Amino acid sequence: MTAAAATYARPATWPDVPVVDTDVHITPRSIAALLPYLPARWRAYVRESGIRGLESDLYPPGSPLAALPGSRPVDGPPGSDLDLLRAQLLDPWRTHIAVTHCIYGVDGIHNPDWAVAMARAVNDWQLAEWLAPEPRLRGSIVVAAQDPARAAAEIDRVGDRPELVQVILPVRAAAPLGTRANWPIYEAAERHGLALAVYAGGAGRHPVTPVGRPTYHLEEYVGIAHAFQAQLVSLVCEGVPARFPRLPIVLVEAGFTWLPPLMWRLDKNWKGLRREVPWVDRLPSEIIRETVRLTAQPLDGPPEPQRLLEVLDRLGSDRMLMFATDYPHHQFDDAEHAVPTGLPVDALTRLLSTNAVDTYRLGS
Amino acid sequence: MTAAAATYARPATWPDVPVVDTDVHITPRSIAALLPYLPARWRAYVRESGIRGLESDLYPPGSPLAALPGSRPVDGPPGSDLDLLRAQLLDPWRTHIAVTHCIYGVDGIHNPDWAVAMARAVNDWQLAEWLAPEPRLRGSIVVAAQDPARAAAEIDRVGDRPELVQVILPVRAAAPLGTRANWPIYEAAERHGLALAVYAGGAGRHPVTPVGRPTYHLEEYVGIAHAFQAQLVSLVCEGVPARFPRLPIVLVEAGFTWLPPLMWRLDKNWKGLRREVPWVDRLPSEIIRETVRLTAQPLDGPPEPQRLLEVLDRLGSDRMLMFATDYPHHQFDDAEHAVPTGLPVDALTRLLSTNAVDTYRLGS
Repeated sequence: MTAAAATYARPATWPDVPVVDTDVHITPRSIAALLPYLPARWRAYVRESGIRGLESDLYPPGSPLAALPGSRPVDGPPGSDLDLLRAQLLDPWRTHIAVTHCIYGVDGIHNPDWAVAMARAVNDWQLAEWLAPEPRLRGSIVVAAQDPARAAAEIDRVGDRPELVQVILPVRAAAPLGTRANWPIYEAAERHGLALAVYAGGAGRHPVTPVGRPTYHLEEYVGIAHAFQAQLVSLVCEGVPARFPRLPIVLVEAGFTWLPPLMWRLDKNWKGLRREVPWVDRLPSEIIRETVRLTAQPLDGPPEPQRLLEVLDRLGSDRMLMFATDYPHHQFDDAEHAVPTGLPVDALTRLLSTNAVDTYRLGS
Repeated sequence: MTAAAATYARPATWPDVPVVDTDVHITPRSIAALLPYLPARWRAYVRESGIRGLESDLYPPGSPLAALPGSRPVDGPPGSDLDLLRAQLLDPWRTHIAVTHCIYGVDGIHNPDWAVAMARAVNDWQLAEWLAPEPRLRGSIVVAAQDPARAAAEIDRVGDRPELVQVILPVRAAAPLGTRANWPIYEAAERHGLALAVYAGGAGRHPVTPVGRPTYHLEEYVGIAHAFQAQLVSLVCEGVPARFPRLPIVLVEAGFTWLPPLMWRLDKNWKGLRREVPWVDRLPSEIIRETVRLTAQPLDGPPEPQRLLEVLDRLGSDRMLMFATDYPHHQFDDAEHAVPTGLPVDALTRLLSTNAVDTYRLGS
């Protein structure tokens, strides 16, 4: 790639606080990089089947516009080189902590044994090749929800490693995430003091709309916000926050301007139907404000930047949003618009640092 | 039913304008009421098959709470008696025009020939038994989207009757509504000066969420707003407003507080992906403001009534909302909250009357 490296850096106007970047993508140079972490059976399976990779193509991986200029190393995809990540992200932004994730298509594998093995391989790969060498990084535990008991066992295996701060599941999951089948995963995450992250991706076993598969990428991008809303409603209605009160739920790349009207609608309908869900024993919006955190980029805001503050005000909490660059994706708006314009310094400090420090217990 | 008749009536504080109620449900006393309008083949089919009715049970039809007290006649379901409709709705509200609809489960019929015959029967039944005897009513044409060509033929058959003002399709359709397969329907509707109504119901051939079937009614109620959003995005992205510019799109019982953030997200992603949809040649939000109308009840508003005016302001148009009671459903908030508090008289007049008069060409 000949594109010049982007010059995004921490704006000089920001307060001098330890910035936590809550959405950074890392990925193996190729599936070969994961093979050393797979048992012999699955190493052979990958080789014999000629599998060249499992990465989702939810965003067009071959497009030069899909990644930040300069984020593609000569021998791998964007986000696959630690030195480049340091030079392009951690150093110029003076990042205190960056929370990384790499799902590597594990959720799309139909064979649960292979999925379990791949999840374990991704976790060991990120621990050895990213989190151990770079103390500014914290990782996300990949699990195979196809086999919840062994997903919980994987969390038990690595969940006390201080480099790992959350369990990550895709928003476009095989089922609504509140399903009781998933509870062993949430129980294990809470047991190890981890958060539950839901990120903007997944194998897409269901159409991205509630009315069937749409025609255009544009519809898919818009629709993913509805998948997030459905998952949030599922988690709350099924009683995950009630049952696992110490488990923060982090929505990654979900946007957030849709949240106030969703809370209004959920509160209203809960008033009429709360007998269905007795564990939801107060307004769902209160539970959401306490439990849910959202990465602040990409942002779908009003055309007038000053009106974004009204949206933030309607969230009803300054503890919900966490700074994120979405590196190396190109959806990140730009450094000047990385945070809402006109935010008071207290709220800005919360967004840039404190909210993530609290959510991920980074201060201890 | 022994419940006392509800005393909802037009609030005395409203301006003396010709009120148009854009969401009134009517229904046959039973499927027997439709038999005279069916050809012999399908009359025999219904009898021989022992079919007792096709009405959706998306809202619990047996629950006393599902309908307004006093709206259930002794010999049929709520909304099946014209005299009761007059006494409980048209007279106390001094309704100028009420727009009625009755889908009667036609969209859920798999056999397209039966669906076509049932749609025709519902249209002839409503014309003969509701719209002819009561000049304050205007009806909605039911069509079988299962066979778009014959759906268009049905619109051609009855579309010039002045008692009929729109073609109605369920939001939970078999496919995204923008699909080209549906275009003969939209072409016929525009040809006859009708609107396209999308209402909160349908056979639910797809799960109501983009992540699979949820567990609770509460999730279903919340999720239907996402189905509306997906259909709106489909209609705009596929180019229905561009191709049929004189076809208003009316979202019935969709809520509307979700619309500003949806427009922000759609506008933003359109900027990056507009090459996919060259017929969307300006901001989608501009197209939506021009084309889309929404019934104003039920309403999912913020807990502070005065903040609802902010939401209305963010819609960016005072021409989009139309008054509705949702009679005889019980979701209607109440007479005092039927319209947003504190609305200036001009905007209130638009909402109560002018917007619907313009949309349905009721002034000519």
